[in-house]
Amino acid sequence: MGIPERLQLLRQRMQQENVDLYFIPTNDFHGSEYVNDYFKTREYISGFDGSAGSVVVSMEEAGLWTDGRYFLQAEAQLQGSGITLYKEGQEGVPKLYEYIEEKLLPGQTLGLDGRMVSQEWLEGLAQLLREKEVKMDISRDLVGDIWPDRPLLQHRKAWILPDEYAGESRAGKLARLRDYIQEKHAHGMVLTCLDDIAWLLNIRGNDIACTPVVLSYLVVTLDACFLFAGERIFSPEDEKQLAADGICLKPYGAIYDFVRDYPHSQPLLVDKAAANALLLSEYMAGKQVLYCTCPITLWKAVKNPTEIENEKKAHIRDGVAVTRFIYWIKQNIDKIPLTEILAAEKLEEFRREQEHYLEPSFEPIAGYAEHGAIVHYSATEETNARLLPENFLLLDTGGQYLEGTTDITRTILLGGKPTKEQKKYYTAVLRGNLNLCAAKFRYGCSGVALDYAARQPLWDMGCDYNHGTGHGVGYLLGVHEAPNAFRYRILRGEGKNAVLEAGMITSDEPGIYLEGSYGIRLENLILCVKREKNEYGQFMGFEPLTFVPFERDAIDAAQLSERERQLLNQYHEQVFEKIGGFLSRQEREWLADVCAPV
Amino acid sequence: MGIPERLQLLRQRMQQENVDLYFIPTNDFHGSEYVNDYFKTREYISGFDGSAGSVVVSMEEAGLWTDGRYFLQAEAQLQGSGITLYKEGQEGVPKLYEYIEEKLLPGQTLGLDGRMVSQEWLEGLAQLLREKEVKMDISRDLVGDIWPDRPLLQHRKAWILPDEYAGESRAGKLARLRDYIQEKHAHGMVLTCLDDIAWLLNIRGNDIACTPVVLSYLVVTLDACFLFAGERIFSPEDEKQLAADGICLKPYGAIYDFVRDYPHSQPLLVDKAAANALLLSEYMAGKQVLYCTCPITLWKAVKNPTEIENEKKAHIRDGVAVTRFIYWIKQNIDKIPLTEILAAEKLEEFRREQEHYLEPSFEPIAGYAEHGAIVHYSATEETNARLLPENFLLLDTGGQYLEGTTDITRTILLGGKPTKEQKKYYTAVLRGNLNLCAAKFRYGCSGVALDYAARQPLWDMGCDYNHGTGHGVGYLLGVHEAPNAFRYRILRGEGKNAVLEAGMITSDEPGIYLEGSYGIRLENLILCVKREKNEYGQFMGFEPLTFVPFERDAIDAAQLSERERQLLNQYHEQVFEKIGGFLSRQEREWLADVCAPV
Repeated sequence: MGIPERLQLLRQRMQQENVDLYFIPTNDFHGSEYVNDYFKTREYISGFDGSAGSVVVSMEEAGLWTDGRYFLQAEAQLQGSGITLYKEGQEGVPKLYEYIEEKLLPGQTLGLDGRMVSQEWLEGLAQLLREKEVKMDISRDLVGDIWPDRPLLQHRKAWILPDEYAGESRAGKLARLRDYIQEKHAHGMVLTCLDDIAWLLNIRGNDIACTPVVLSYLVVTLDACFLFAGERIFSPEDEKQLAADGICLKPYGAIYDFVRDYPHSQPLLVDKAAANALLLSEYMAGKQVLYCTCPITLWKAVKNPTEIENEKKAHIRDGVAVTRFIYWIKQNIDKIPLTEILAAEKLEEFRREQEHYLEPSFEPIAGYAEHGAIVHYSATEETNARLLPENFLLLDTGGQYLEGTTDITRTILLGGKPTKEQKKYYTAVLRGNLNLCAAKFRYGCSGVALDYAARQPLWDMGCDYNHGTGHGVGYLLGVHEAPNAFRYRILRGEGKNAVLEAGMITSDEPGIYLEGSYGIRLENLILCVKREKNEYGQFMGFEPLTFVPFERDAIDAAQLSERERQLLNQYHEQVFEKIGGFLSRQEREWLADVCAPV
Repeated sequence: MGIPERLQLLRQRMQQENVDLYFIPTNDFHGSEYVNDYFKTREYISGFDGSAGSVVVSMEEAGLWTDGRYFLQAEAQLQGSGITLYKEGQEGVPKLYEYIEEKLLPGQTLGLDGRMVSQEWLEGLAQLLREKEVKMDISRDLVGDIWPDRPLLQHRKAWILPDEYAGESRAGKLARLRDYIQEKHAHGMVLTCLDDIAWLLNIRGNDIACTPVVLSYLVVTLDACFLFAGERIFSPEDEKQLAADGICLKPYGAIYDFVRDYPHSQPLLVDKAAANALLLSEYMAGKQVLYCTCPITLWKAVKNPTEIENEKKAHIRDGVAVTRFIYWIKQNIDKIPLTEILAAEKLEEFRREQEHYLEPSFEPIAGYAEHGAIVHYSATEETNARLLPENFLLLDTGGQYLEGTTDITRTILLGGKPTKEQKKYYTAVLRGNLNLCAAKFRYGCSGVALDYAARQPLWDMGCDYNHGTGHGVGYLLGVHEAPNAFRYRILRGEGKNAVLEAGMITSDEPGIYLEGSYGIRLENLILCVKREKNEYGQFMGFEPLTFVPFERDAIDAAQLSERERQLLNQYHEQVFEKIGGFLSRQEREWLADVCAPV
């Protein structure tokens, strides 16, 4: 069934239910970034399969909103769908909220599945619509109704992450949360965010590709703890362990009735930016709800010493895999037929050879030449490009290890001599990457205050990249994790622009994208650490976690300042020290060459 | 009467009025930064005369809270007062709010003059104290009660700023505000901030030293406008002009009854961050009040083309005055006896020779040698240091001209050869100043995103300065003006971290302070301008407004990157071009020397 037919069926359902405008976000019931196939209603209705986007359908029109990462991809995928692309953040493009407000006429109804938006999102919209006489019906999964072969909502096997990997016991974490609940004069807290639950209980699962979380809700009270998840997902031993820590297992769907029947006298904390609107607006209506910013977001972002030591190990293994891949592709590019998909598969093969490797931490991006300019490109059988011994291959991949999560981008010159322009841009991006990692700063800076270090070389040239410079990364959890990030715009909302704390892991990934030619992005994960404390205050800095060589031939040394030259050479020296010992003799000789001082 | 005696009298009054803890801020009834002498209750009760600080007095203790600019000064001035200094932002130092919360016991009363705090401040405190059974009495001016020779609250002559200086007519500005009022579905707006009123009505006055505002309140409704100010402060001609634009004059104190008697049916907009708590909590209690963030803050920060052209003229004149002063002091330092005060007076003499100069824009800071390390040092007869032909004189001064407000800091080497350390620090501060001004950035950056450009050279050395890198500057108004600023910490609250807009004027003033030795600060005002707009977006940048040479002998050229060397030379070339023509032959020859390329 084509997209126009799907839209037609949806519009029939809308008419039956008296819905005039139907909203389809990218989400699950937990505010997850990546979602289980069951939840991919936006992809089903639009054909656009990027990781972010929202669709609004009226009887006459349909629109998709997505961000700069996906403009090119969405343009291509929406061809012939009858859906208009709205490029978020571009001048003159109406915002999603504004569009909904403008389109809804008095007396009309906006429909949506209230489990698929946060309470905060819904309140924001309601605030905007407050003077319009319109209705909202948040109990409609209309795309679900017309989706014949919708994947099942399966609950896969889950497991316990031992303390030697987690670094802090479940009991210790629960005690922290209960202190917080008491401090807030509440009796309990409803947790809906899957990463938070996995971190708090030291559990991991397989319900979302690339993010080892367990589809679940959690209610922690001062004296009990209820985990709403799939039945029999844990082994009997793990169930015992959880029971020993007072975790009571309940069916996944039972959360709704549980909160509805919860005693009115006992206040419950909820983060309305995370919790879904149906849960709060319908099932918790009239309850004593105290809104809070979930403290786990910050707690899990600050990695403990065990996690830090483990992450360093995971990154060495990951570095070995990626370094070996780079050597391999440079050896084989003119020997065997290669494509973007084959390259990604080969890298995955190298990763699988590494100890404690579990799965990719996100869908690999292997963008050759002009595909590299599509920021979140994902090769399909249709687009899969043949790799030639020239131009750049942009490879953004990562792995989940028992010892943590990795995320690395290298832009590899597949052969030939780079053009002057290619060297100019590669070097500018590299300078940004090196300068951010080398930033020394006073405690109190958020990533907003340091983003300039990465962008300056490009901004000076009148260039930029349409994405953040870096995102927080979880420990064997989401590869995109709030609240730490590098970006130049300040976000609205409490806790959104977190101060950088020692122990936070953030990506450092400036880039440049030349539509139709190639893309360059260079990404390391960097660990925030304390530097000296003196009469001026506490200084902070970063250490790279990622160790994989940069593309020596694409660097124009004349563009580097003396300091940048030293930074590059120091980094490469560390790469060789840390990675060299795990390579074959040929690989090591090559690594020594590409890591030699410039 | 000494400070201990004043505190004793205050405590007697506190007992009489059943006040257990009394709070004395630095403020007037309008949230002004600098205040008329009448309002200097905090200075009267503590002896500390810095521009920022709050005092809390209980029966047993008294404490003063102030920020990093004033630690050294407050320490000195509080000697023997019995008042404890609390250094804001230092580790382990209780915050003012926390202290009040901790000290107030159940059943006790906190007293303050509700006209001297904003509604927002009071609500924040009330929120903190909500679970304590304490009372607040906001109608007590107890320091006023014990202050025998308190200066009178005088209303001085005011005048109209002609459109050729203001660049936008009063009628135009009022129309803008009325559009805003309508957009917010209100009937009027109560304005209490003196800068906002002066800007909106194109009026100026003399009620606060260095800031040419008119002590007043303003109520703008959709069809009327009431200015509450001193009687007969305008000339008959100016009164006629105001009347022609529909401005109705009322006595200053009449605002309280006016809002109390205002029709309940007509909603009034108020910015609670600005409006005083007595006005809102007592006189507007029960009214239809709509809180807003005053839009004038942003409107007046974005200078119009006339203001920009005028500011450029004012800065040339100011630059001539300061440049001539630097030449003069270098010629005379070993010829005539000079002190910090004499130096500041001499500079003021040079400024007075300039066309349309009105008054200083703030109390001059002339800090010689170790006094330069006291960030907001102000020389008194007691501290006034003799200047010797060696070491640094830090001179931070500014002027009010009909064509705008200036603010400049130069650190002048009075003679001798600078030490290696002096050159190292001077050059680092200079690099920060040059790099911030040269920053090119995407539209959307606030000053937080660019602060790093100024601090990096110092942070890299493990040094810093305990103040923001820059503040907004008004047009013939406050020399410190929100919402634009350069700082690395993000402020809480809507509109506090404004995006930099073309037309904003901000200071660029990194520094370093070596307690007991010297201080270095280099400050230019810089104008935000648009650069190219291309496929990546709208780029922005800055142009310096201030043109006065830096201290050539204190620069270590070896520390400058090639780009920084070019920036310095380009700046000095402009200084010579713009200032040279207004100097005597000897002055110009000297300027040519100090502006020659390094």
